[in-house]
Amino acid sequence: MSMSFKYELPTKIEFGHHVIQKLPEHVHALGGSRALIVTDPGLIEAGIVDQAVQPLLDAQIPFDIFSEIEPDPDIEGVPKAVQAAQKAGCDIVIGLGGGSSLDTAKAAGIMLGNDGDIRDYVGINKVPHRGAPVIAVPTTAGTGSEVTIWSVLTDKQSGAKLSVGSPHNCPALALCDPMLTLTLPPHITAATGMDALTHALESYVNKATQPISEGMSLQAMTLIARSLRTAVFHGKDVQARYDMLLASLIAALAFNETRLGIAHALALPLGAHFHIPHGTVNAMLLPEVMEFNYPSQIEKFKRIAEIFGERVAEVSDREAAYRSVAAIRQLKEDVGITQSLTSYGVQEEHLDRIAEEAMQSGNIPVNPRMPTPEDLKQICRKLMTPS
Amino acid sequence: MSMSFKYELPTKIEFGHHVIQKLPEHVHALGGSRALIVTDPGLIEAGIVDQAVQPLLDAQIPFDIFSEIEPDPDIEGVPKAVQAAQKAGCDIVIGLGGGSSLDTAKAAGIMLGNDGDIRDYVGINKVPHRGAPVIAVPTTAGTGSEVTIWSVLTDKQSGAKLSVGSPHNCPALALCDPMLTLTLPPHITAATGMDALTHALESYVNKATQPISEGMSLQAMTLIARSLRTAVFHGKDVQARYDMLLASLIAALAFNETRLGIAHALALPLGAHFHIPHGTVNAMLLPEVMEFNYPSQIEKFKRIAEIFGERVAEVSDREAAYRSVAAIRQLKEDVGITQSLTSYGVQEEHLDRIAEEAMQSGNIPVNPRMPTPEDLKQICRKLMTPS
Ligand SMILES: [Fe+2]
Ligand SMILES: [Fe+2]
Repeated sequence: MSMSFKYELPTKIEFGHHVIQKLPEHVHALGGSRALIVTDPGLIEAGIVDQAVQPLLDAQIPFDIFSEIEPDPDIEGVPKAVQAAQKAGCDIVIGLGGGSSLDTAKAAGIMLGNDGDIRDYVGINKVPHRGAPVIAVPTTAGTGSEVTIWSVLTDKQSGAKLSVGSPHNCPALALCDPMLTLTLPPHITAATGMDALTHALESYVNKATQPISEGMSLQAMTLIARSLRTAVFHGKDVQARYDMLLASLIAALAFNETRLGIAHALALPLGAHFHIPHGTVNAMLLPEVMEFNYPSQIEKFKRIAEIFGERVAEVSDREAAYRSVAAIRQLKEDVGITQSLTSYGVQEEHLDRIAEEAMQSGNIPVNPRMPTPEDLKQICRKLMTPS
Repeated sequence: MSMSFKYELPTKIEFGHHVIQKLPEHVHALGGSRALIVTDPGLIEAGIVDQAVQPLLDAQIPFDIFSEIEPDPDIEGVPKAVQAAQKAGCDIVIGLGGGSSLDTAKAAGIMLGNDGDIRDYVGINKVPHRGAPVIAVPTTAGTGSEVTIWSVLTDKQSGAKLSVGSPHNCPALALCDPMLTLTLPPHITAATGMDALTHALESYVNKATQPISEGMSLQAMTLIARSLRTAVFHGKDVQARYDMLLASLIAALAFNETRLGIAHALALPLGAHFHIPHGTVNAMLLPEVMEFNYPSQIEKFKRIAEIFGERVAEVSDREAAYRSVAAIRQLKEDVGITQSLTSYGVQEEHLDRIAEEAMQSGNIPVNPRMPTPEDLKQICRKLMTPS
């Protein structure tokens, strides 16, 4: 297991309660004179955007707001945000929101320093130059987009999800304030938290993992085991919100270098074609994917079982590893994710296409156990009610 | 425990067997046209420098060698290296060696982009500009200088150790090749490995630690528990060398953000005035410092005991924590560090000054238990033979 690996972290991290107050000093430090805030209308309504805007007003930093972000953000949002920035003369972008806002903000940052169209940069390491600096302020604890190289954007015409991955797509700063997540409703807390868990876990067991990522995954899973249920059931619990925002950040520090696994490979086409929220579809898939994968990584799945509180001392390693599946299935149900794929309209006749698209994913070759298309269909079938 | 924290990693990491072969591509990627290699005469003699030079020759990258580095490197080495670089027209610095070579190379890199004298930048965050890019190639597994903000340099006239700490002092790249460490003699493997352990452990229990550092410390201690003895007794064991170089790197990723504790506070004056190698003095001090600290962090010292293989399930938490002290004391002795401070000439009459200088260290306020000067003297006395 003495493999070669690389690690880099282009993003500076500032984390803590009320760090949103430091937004102005960071805008200055990054040389910004006018900011474009990229966010969604729900966050304006909920008063979350005000919490970022007030410090900017107090510091007399001019800004504009681009709030045309919706879930599964349209790739056309990128040129629109860029245009808004250019028209107003913004030289720094503040992404404020969940993955959709951050992914669009990051891509807009790129396009403020690179020619052509964002579609030219779909793929990995295609972006030639640094763009405008981006400050990412997450308001959900899930995607980890505040530190990742990835923006996932939807081509609304074809329904395809397009991924841009580049170190130039990493924000200059991740400004992580758990107080901004206190009002996140339970079902979004649950889905995004399970997404973070899927990141930590898929990275930990996959073939591309490496020691720095492994350390991050273990730390993230420990935090989630301790605090996901509390964050869902006691949303105002400040410590639980701190833990979950931290877990989602740390999980992203792990998978940024390693990619993920079958759950994310399937989540993309299922999410795109059936409009299942990203966290929800990952949560649904994760236990089934674990059940497929665990025989290929007994030691690691045993460790996961241990982290999630299962008794492992008195049983065989294989049985201990298997207990991780039950632990995560129970966690998923406890936090209220009990939907079936059927309820989103997925039927047997769709599975060929879903499996085919999933097999194209860069997350398949790193999955610890190589699946056939039939394996992927079988995993989906377990989440469908018999017709 | 919901504290605020920052994390940044200005250095890219490339780690693995034979990655030294990639030196030319990294010189190119960093825009270097002519390299200054900063190293020590022992490494030239041992043929280690050849392993870096050959790929440069093959790639026709011109270079010069500055090899006037000795242990506890003289701060005057910095202007000498800078002069060598400027005379030859070098625009990139390659530090190759232990902490002494890397610390000098890093400081020379700074001075290739900043005015004045390196003494102007002693302290923390005093360096205004980026310098020339530095590639750090560690040949010992201990200091972690390949990623830290720190250069520790000795003023040979006063005997004082001067520390320069700045993100600008971080290398652009850490190129970590365990194959370069295979011929490290057992006593240096032991001392440097214990230094890495002291970094991981002091950071883990101190007041400034934070979740990302904690994850790194746990990972580093796990690797050291598994592989330090093997690396000392079976120097050609490639996996053990991999683990130890990795542990020293990861420990540095932990303490870069947190500083250390009493062992390092005492190690600096003891090392400076009595010429005790840095790793050796830390190894001597660590169990005694742990014995002083463990009541203030029972849970964490219990975890350390567990990592080092102690039985903790059947005893009280306090007893479990205490077992970490015995575990590390045994490890230190097993790897052959059995010297006393007395054997280096330290006597009772010196302790006032040592304690006084140690109390000035930035590592004291973060130590988990606040010591008095008398506490520090008492720790030293435990390492002295009665006269
Ligand atoms: Fe995800
Ligand atoms: Fe040290």
